[in-house]
Amino acid sequence: MTWHGDHALVLDQTALPATVRFIEVRTPDDMIDVIERLVIRGAPALAVAGAFGIALAVLHHERGETSKETLLNEVARIRSARPTAVNLAWGVDHVLPAMEGGSAAVIAAAEALAERDAMVNGHLAQRGARFVAELCGPKPFGIQTHCHTGSLACIEWGTALGIIRVLHDMGMVEHVYVGETRPLLQGSRLTSFELMHLGVPHSIVVDGAGPSMIARGDASVVIVGADCITANGDVVNKIGTYPLALAAWRAEIPFIVSAPEATIDESIASGSDVKIEMRDPNEVLSYAGQIIAPLGAKAINPAFDITPADLVTAIVTEDRILRPDRAGLQSIHQSAHHVSAPVIPTSSAITTI
Amino acid sequence: MTWHGDHALVLDQTALPATVRFIEVRTPDDMIDVIERLVIRGAPALAVAGAFGIALAVLHHERGETSKETLLNEVARIRSARPTAVNLAWGVDHVLPAMEGGSAAVIAAAEALAERDAMVNGHLAQRGARFVAELCGPKPFGIQTHCHTGSLACIEWGTALGIIRVLHDMGMVEHVYVGETRPLLQGSRLTSFELMHLGVPHSIVVDGAGPSMIARGDASVVIVGADCITANGDVVNKIGTYPLALAAWRAEIPFIVSAPEATIDESIASGSDVKIEMRDPNEVLSYAGQIIAPLGAKAINPAFDITPADLVTAIVTEDRILRPDRAGLQSIHQSAHHVSAPVIPTSSAITTI
Repeated sequence: MTWHGDHALVLDQTALPATVRFIEVRTPDDMIDVIERLVIRGAPALAVAGAFGIALAVLHHERGETSKETLLNEVARIRSARPTAVNLAWGVDHVLPAMEGGSAAVIAAAEALAERDAMVNGHLAQRGARFVAELCGPKPFGIQTHCHTGSLACIEWGTALGIIRVLHDMGMVEHVYVGETRPLLQGSRLTSFELMHLGVPHSIVVDGAGPSMIARGDASVVIVGADCITANGDVVNKIGTYPLALAAWRAEIPFIVSAPEATIDESIASGSDVKIEMRDPNEVLSYAGQIIAPLGAKAINPAFDITPADLVTAIVTEDRILRPDRAGLQSIHQSAHHVSAPVIPTSSAITTI
Repeated sequence: MTWHGDHALVLDQTALPATVRFIEVRTPDDMIDVIERLVIRGAPALAVAGAFGIALAVLHHERGETSKETLLNEVARIRSARPTAVNLAWGVDHVLPAMEGGSAAVIAAAEALAERDAMVNGHLAQRGARFVAELCGPKPFGIQTHCHTGSLACIEWGTALGIIRVLHDMGMVEHVYVGETRPLLQGSRLTSFELMHLGVPHSIVVDGAGPSMIARGDASVVIVGADCITANGDVVNKIGTYPLALAAWRAEIPFIVSAPEATIDESIASGSDVKIEMRDPNEVLSYAGQIIAPLGAKAINPAFDITPADLVTAIVTEDRILRPDRAGLQSIHQSAHHVSAPVIPTSSAITTI
């Protein structure tokens, strides 16, 4: 998502991977529409979408196209376009103080937010790649990943996929194994799309096959993202992550979690205190309109699983590398140049796709 | 698959779960057709299909509809209708000696083969259910299973699903969690179909969720089948089995493998000596004609994984309950009434679906 003079340009994630289509977002209603239809998804991207949405609303008001009342109404509608996504509201609130300075100020604040997200994730990617290369190098190695953690969900770098991208630039990636990530197939649709775009050699595997790729020695490290990390270092991430952690433990290879600092929620003691979102069973019972189970069959569709802290080798953030132990999260490496707050909050991501 | 006077009746597995359709198989060409189109699949079922196929060929020859030459040609064609399935050839060879006695003798031999398979699996199911009930009872408990091990693949009982069926009759099944079993979805399509038919309470879960159902305590035992068991007790089974074994180990719940004696191949030292079949990547990249990955994306599609012997609590056969230890497979319980050979060979199943 980028800003171009008087509008935002958005890659349509709903059309991927069949079609690469960019959408021009020119009005507040356009922005609400792309948010509601999941053209834009991912916590950091939604924050920036909210900010650009306010920029559009102010711009149209300055041109005399909308009244003050309409402007305020549009701000409220953008802010609540996806009620469960607190990042969206956070992004809106972040640029509201700039409204006094007119559209130029709002646009500048929104672009700064996007740059900040890119910088945060860029730091994270660099730090993570150096750390993983030290653990697994010096020869190129295989990597198992899961779900989608790339720039489509963020702004430029992504988390786990950002690390993989930097490792690739370092010449350290032999092959990436991407779990397709049933039921919504973010691995097949989005991660594979980004890796192809970046020229990173990779193969999609069914989720049941990831642990075998590790056991066979094809993958020498697991790198995944996180939706929430609890105070003791338990990791809440897309369903199918936990089996990879078990397999990594059994094969004695590193299991690396990469996430922004804001993902760590010290107010939650452990994974057992996290309520896992149960999604629509029809996501499991059908695919692309095709019924794949008997009529009347039931499914249970947990969106996330919990990887216990003792299976986690390290957590890489934009500021630190952390290792969970019995006393909680211990920083084993701290950045010389702290990237200070405010970071886009991501704890809400537990209820987003 | 059952015999009715002058023809066999076959449930069309390709139409499941959308449609329950039985096909009348009246000629050798009908039988070859249903074998080639995977209307019939599963090692034991293919052996019986081959035997019934010969019965049809002899029947038509006796009615003067085919020459002796045509008869022999049909026998050869049935025998090789699926070249990789040695069970099919084994079933044909099993009834060939009966041809001297005419169609009645061949039909009797084929029906005896079907009964034998039902009896073997019935013994296995009874033995396994008693064993699991002792381990996990006395209150009803949750069960995690994977792929399809039911009567559609065999003749009447199935292996893992046979045990579950008897446990259900004993009132011991609280709930069954069925892994959908990507890429071919045998769990969603076939296992769920059979469990619904049997009235067993169950839910389908994506393969990545099985380990979580175990970690959460929803499943108290894992029961799966096997395509091959090596001399040391390593278990080769449908891709996605190994993660369930890891999760069972971590949760300290039993991991039970059920398979006929013929599945144990003492000539193979361990799982690392088994060559895993790599299937068509398009099974992963598309579903029902719908592309689910970017054009040009690659996939790796291993059909099976290997569960190391130390993760296996017990192997239940029609004759014994075995426990793998460092010295190999140890019988911990032996049947008073041995079901003697010949059992339909299943080692070929490593290359079948």
